Amino acid sequence: MNLVTIDDIHAAAKRVAGVAVRTPLLPQGWATRGELWLKPENLQQIGAFKIRGAYNAIAALDEPTRARGVVAYSSGNHAQAVAYAAKRFGVHAVIFVPDTTPRVKVEATAAHGAEVVQVPTAEREPAAHALVEAKNMTLIPPYDHADVIAGQGTAGLEIAEDLPDVDVVLVPVSGGGLASGVGTAIRALCPDAKVYGIEPELAADTAESLRTGERVEWSMERRSRTIADGLRAQPSALTFAHLQVVLDGIITVTEDEIRSAVRTLATKAHLVAEPSGAVSTAAYLFHGDELPSGKTVAVVSGGNLDPKTLVDLLS
Amino acid sequence: MNLVTIDDIHAAAKRVAGVAVRTPLLPQGWATRGELWLKPENLQQIGAFKIRGAYNAIAALDEPTRARGVVAYSSGNHAQAVAYAAKRFGVHAVIFVPDTTPRVKVEATAAHGAEVVQVPTAEREPAAHALVEAKNMTLIPPYDHADVIAGQGTAGLEIAEDLPDVDVVLVPVSGGGLASGVGTAIRALCPDAKVYGIEPELAADTAESLRTGERVEWSMERRSRTIADGLRAQPSALTFAHLQVVLDGIITVTEDEIRSAVRTLATKAHLVAEPSGAVSTAAYLFHGDELPSGKTVAVVSGGNLDPKTLVDLLS
Repeated sequence: MNLVTIDDIHAAAKRVAGVAVRTPLLPQGWATRGELWLKPENLQQIGAFKIRGAYNAIAALDEPTRARGVVAYSSGNHAQAVAYAAKRFGVHAVIFVPDTTPRVKVEATAAHGAEVVQVPTAEREPAAHALVEAKNMTLIPPYDHADVIAGQGTAGLEIAEDLPDVDVVLVPVSGGGLASGVGTAIRALCPDAKVYGIEPELAADTAESLRTGERVEWSMERRSRTIADGLRAQPSALTFAHLQVVLDGIITVTEDEIRSAVRTLATKAHLVAEPSGAVSTAAYLFHGDELPSGKTVAVVSGGNLDPKTLVDLLS
Repeated sequence: MNLVTIDDIHAAAKRVAGVAVRTPLLPQGWATRGELWLKPENLQQIGAFKIRGAYNAIAALDEPTRARGVVAYSSGNHAQAVAYAAKRFGVHAVIFVPDTTPRVKVEATAAHGAEVVQVPTAEREPAAHALVEAKNMTLIPPYDHADVIAGQGTAGLEIAEDLPDVDVVLVPVSGGGLASGVGTAIRALCPDAKVYGIEPELAADTAESLRTGERVEWSMERRSRTIADGLRAQPSALTFAHLQVVLDGIITVTEDEIRSAVRTLATKAHLVAEPSGAVSTAAYLFHGDELPSGKTVAVVSGGNLDPKTLVDLLS
């Protein structure tokens, strides 16, 4: 299987420049267990790192292909990323979402000019594929695609540029696109640094898969127990192959640790993170004994959560 | 009176590089009334822009002077900024705070290694001056100093670098150091842009002063009515002279508008702003009719507020 290379990530960086915010590394003075920097991807215009991969994938299409439009199935940050990226290119985007999707998420995606189609959850994927066939449009998957992985990798490239002597990078793992891309960049540019994937204990399919050496399936019901609703996906064969090469280990965090990290990020770092975006900070805060010491970067991957949940978490 | 120049600000930028975070401009997709970018100074390590001025002022001292230590009187973000900057230089800092200062603020300042001295409010300034005399230390004022103004101006320099065709810059006004510095940078580098100071209606001494052409005194009791506790200071002769030259106008915002802006920043921009830091966003949201249209930057000046107040504001 061909893995994404640092050259792919450099090429992606050229494409996403001026579209994805080049987020700074934020030094955290309150951090007592060694130096900590946050990479605040929650500050991207769509509130998550997903814009990097979605934009890179659409930018990499040849012009006639792109002009026929793009399709995605997602109810989360990837939907908004594809919608926003398509708008930047002035091409049509159709996003299939489950008919149970909260209206606020439907509206956020539609606000970027995308056509949002609500279908029963089980029909989402077939409906998307049928449209792709019928209209010769292009499916932009949330992580199972080399251009998406390369796009997410630009976050790792920026970490390596801003802190070349980084010792430890902590990155959330769900479908594995972000961890694959960031890990690839760090491996190439900071070969002495260690890269850890972070998962909720309640959706630790990748931890188990890496331990056993093959992808283990956890039921959606089991994965859905975690409050970190952005971390309920599972790696594809492609991202799993990357993770096996680029991760030094996986740390799992509890629900209480995730909630505490959301509070710490708000009160001490002045960042609103969604639970999925806070798991890397949770690992820093509560799992120091499982991590090497040294200069640590935690990727805060997203900040989209409804206001009521935020208040509940902070109260 | 000598005003700070763009050369002073360029010199300050060299000094603060690597200490102050070079905050990005964050594009806001939700902004419907023309394009909006936020300059998130709440993401500085001490949670506010103040590190720029305090560090520049201490860095500009000659080595023997600096080695004798620095003094400040402040209970807010400036105290932490001086303490942090002194620590970076390895010099002693003494911060005088009112004996009514909440313990959390005393501890935050002491955590940077500063000596925090609690005295009755009225004795704060004389006590600081007495120490400066006795020990030949240097007072670092929060805004009434050219090096402090030049340091704050580096935020404006970055805005001009990142968005050279900016049309409107919105910046909070209290003692006027930030607005003086940012205004000076924008005037010099983006001569067609308009710069507006933003004040709470309940502490609108500068609005009145600029209208009448001379500094008008509002009682501390009157200024203390606003929730924006970082905007209760008044310009000095030095900062007022700058503001008269560099501001195109002042917009005042209500308490409800400030609260609403704190909520918008948290839920849509994923930033925790203190009320003082949210006034520029409040002006964008609610006073569009008083502002020119075009590419707008709102400076989010700080994010330090206690967790309970944050929850109250978001609820």
